[in-house]
Amino acid sequence: MKTVNIGIVGLGTVGGGVVKLLSEKAEWFRQAQNLPIWLRRVADKREDRIKELPTGDAIISANADDVLADPDIHIVVELVGGTGFAKTLILNALAAKKHVITANKALIAQHGPELFEAAQKNNVSIYFEASVGGGMPVIKTIRESLIANNIVSVKTIINGTCNYILSQMSEKNQQFATVLADAQKKGFAEANPDLDVDGTDSAHKVAIMASLFHGGYVPYGKFYVEGIKEITKDDIAFGRDLGYAIKLLGIIHKRPGEEYVDVRVHPAMVHRNHVLATISDVFNAVLLEGHAVGPILLYGKGAGEMPTASSVLSDIADAARDIVTNAARRIPMNYYHSDKALTLKPVEEIISRYYLCFYVSDKPKVLASIASILGNHQISIASVMQKESKEDSTSVPVVFLTHKVLERDIREALDEIARLDVTKKKTRMIRITGQDYGDKDIQRR
Amino acid sequence: MKTVNIGIVGLGTVGGGVVKLLSEKAEWFRQAQNLPIWLRRVADKREDRIKELPTGDAIISANADDVLADPDIHIVVELVGGTGFAKTLILNALAAKKHVITANKALIAQHGPELFEAAQKNNVSIYFEASVGGGMPVIKTIRESLIANNIVSVKTIINGTCNYILSQMSEKNQQFATVLADAQKKGFAEANPDLDVDGTDSAHKVAIMASLFHGGYVPYGKFYVEGIKEITKDDIAFGRDLGYAIKLLGIIHKRPGEEYVDVRVHPAMVHRNHVLATISDVFNAVLLEGHAVGPILLYGKGAGEMPTASSVLSDIADAARDIVTNAARRIPMNYYHSDKALTLKPVEEIISRYYLCFYVSDKPKVLASIASILGNHQISIASVMQKESKEDSTSVPVVFLTHKVLERDIREALDEIARLDVTKKKTRMIRITGQDYGDKDIQRR
Repeated sequence: MKTVNIGIVGLGTVGGGVVKLLSEKAEWFRQAQNLPIWLRRVADKREDRIKELPTGDAIISANADDVLADPDIHIVVELVGGTGFAKTLILNALAAKKHVITANKALIAQHGPELFEAAQKNNVSIYFEASVGGGMPVIKTIRESLIANNIVSVKTIINGTCNYILSQMSEKNQQFATVLADAQKKGFAEANPDLDVDGTDSAHKVAIMASLFHGGYVPYGKFYVEGIKEITKDDIAFGRDLGYAIKLLGIIHKRPGEEYVDVRVHPAMVHRNHVLATISDVFNAVLLEGHAVGPILLYGKGAGEMPTASSVLSDIADAARDIVTNAARRIPMNYYHSDKALTLKPVEEIISRYYLCFYVSDKPKVLASIASILGNHQISIASVMQKESKEDSTSVPVVFLTHKVLERDIREALDEIARLDVTKKKTRMIRITGQDYGDKDIQRR
Repeated sequence: MKTVNIGIVGLGTVGGGVVKLLSEKAEWFRQAQNLPIWLRRVADKREDRIKELPTGDAIISANADDVLADPDIHIVVELVGGTGFAKTLILNALAAKKHVITANKALIAQHGPELFEAAQKNNVSIYFEASVGGGMPVIKTIRESLIANNIVSVKTIINGTCNYILSQMSEKNQQFATVLADAQKKGFAEANPDLDVDGTDSAHKVAIMASLFHGGYVPYGKFYVEGIKEITKDDIAFGRDLGYAIKLLGIIHKRPGEEYVDVRVHPAMVHRNHVLATISDVFNAVLLEGHAVGPILLYGKGAGEMPTASSVLSDIADAARDIVTNAARRIPMNYYHSDKALTLKPVEEIISRYYLCFYVSDKPKVLASIASILGNHQISIASVMQKESKEDSTSVPVVFLTHKVLERDIREALDEIARLDVTKKKTRMIRITGQDYGDKDIQRR
């Protein structure tokens, strides 16, 4: 049986995890799974870092080109990150007819079509299970297990940092900035947390998922993304009073027969009876609904050294099986690099329920004037709650939950209300999810 | 490209679902997935049933042998059920060098080693995703996605009928028999419900899972199985008061370095903060813990026409890819048909916490005599609760929760207590799970 030689470029957190897990499992892969894999090369600029790791007989190098230049390498594992050097590296690896395994969600989301086309041209594959959901088998479940399903809905909590911050804000009744600082101290948030808290990282993963199943590429950067920076502890407390938890959700919906795909990332009020409301701390979850299978939930650690390494090794096993059996490009990626970019539904056209929190001067008639503007925009009110604010004595928060309305109407009404001189602070608007689309989400009791 | 011809034997609920889903998706499999699958034959004795289904150009037959005898059939889908005719059918199909897809959990659990050995001998594969967890990708996740993990723990709710009954008992405060009758009326339980409520069906699935990852076959019928028939509404009410839900759990544990594998199926008290306590109605869940990936939860519909058909079609796709790429036996089944049957831990040797409910005459000193016997057996008490029973005025229930103790000690103590003349009804004993093994189960808040 032929040998399958692996070269790893980038020995950061995930790369280190992969080296460790390979050193533990490679012999078992060879003996019990008939997968003749060998770690032949590793490359990283930091010599000290390489020395910490159980690289065994692998040839060590400071230069990624050494990995690409080795004709005996069959699989290049790109764990450098970023969209510059990593992109060149992958394109060069593909051009050299090497299979590529990557955990690089930004790269796949932004340059997927180009990369998958290059893979096809060279008759090699790109494996990217670790790019979405850390240790959870999101890509394999979508592409293989649910292959006979039209995926009608995805709702996902796919960024552990944001979920940790929102969980802590709720638990400790603290503001975003306080919790973020604490999360940074504990290593649950980066020194520069923008990619996470702005929703960008979630959007990368959502773009990848959406591109896999609706017959075309979902162009990253073309759908609505809103992060969690503006969520206040008031929002969380009011939400809780009303029976909702606030989660940063990635949403992908496609109504049967509708041309549009509705893709978005934003904070959402999730009813406490909905399974996604129970996902706390750094845990991630992906709730898929297939037309045949119904709802399926995957739940686990969406990031971290060993969970992500676990997915990279599952890709190594798949790639090795494909190499051994001469089955390169076993699972086609024709959607992702089709010419057909999907038509996305503008967020103004979604229909949703909304949480609105107005901060107004505590004068008589204020409630009436707001309600009247909402009414003029065909916005029907489900409930109203006025609370005392402890933080800000110049204004009081008034919370409205709407029935289902068109987002364009909400936006127009909010613009009008913003111009009222009783409005003292920016109005908070959070979409409510769960029952929209009449979806058959898993409910817990 | 060669054609992959499919023959389906057995057009019951699942078989009908497979025909429907194939008629909907086969063209897409061919066009978008490069999988040249064709439904060539179907066989079922019930001619009327066949006529209800969109079998298209498939050749219809009342005799399964017609499918086996057709040299152009590559894949036989066995959806007959049972362990008699189905076993012969599968062995004959394998002998005819046809790949086999089955949803037959009883057959795999009871005769797996023989079947997998026959498949190996004939260089064809058996695909059995639909045998465990309906539409949830349990088998693929264990064998492929978590391939680099030592699976240290599995806890699963894997029988929808039992979960529905227990959920309804809890919600409606009704006894088992009442809820069962209602479930039968609604089609959530079979006319003969024994396979489900005795735990047998769960045990089949647990045996299959356990045989996949600890290096040998877990002989079905050799581990402890207890069903839900004896669960009372008292148990459920007392559990709830103490913060627990009662679930029928399949459990697979292996401590690192320990030779024993602890495999069992029984009702368990699950703390309400544990994610498995939130799985209600007919839903199933599998909580896997891998040493690298940490906890992973799969959650969805564990049975039913279309969810199960979804898994059968995922097997059809896998089998077709393997046939097209000449990659038969892509994923080895060496564990399952190894000579090495795993050593199972006798249930008497497990260490657990216990819920004990004694029904005693309401006399002074009764509590003391029970507590004293428990103490003599090294059973340390965590809490005691005495409640009034509305059902039975001749005795009162006294509930003890123990700390972690050896099951043998519990059994000896219960034997001794049963002989006391103050004991009026059989003592109820339910294992408490969740924190044992110090496992890092997913907790919700």
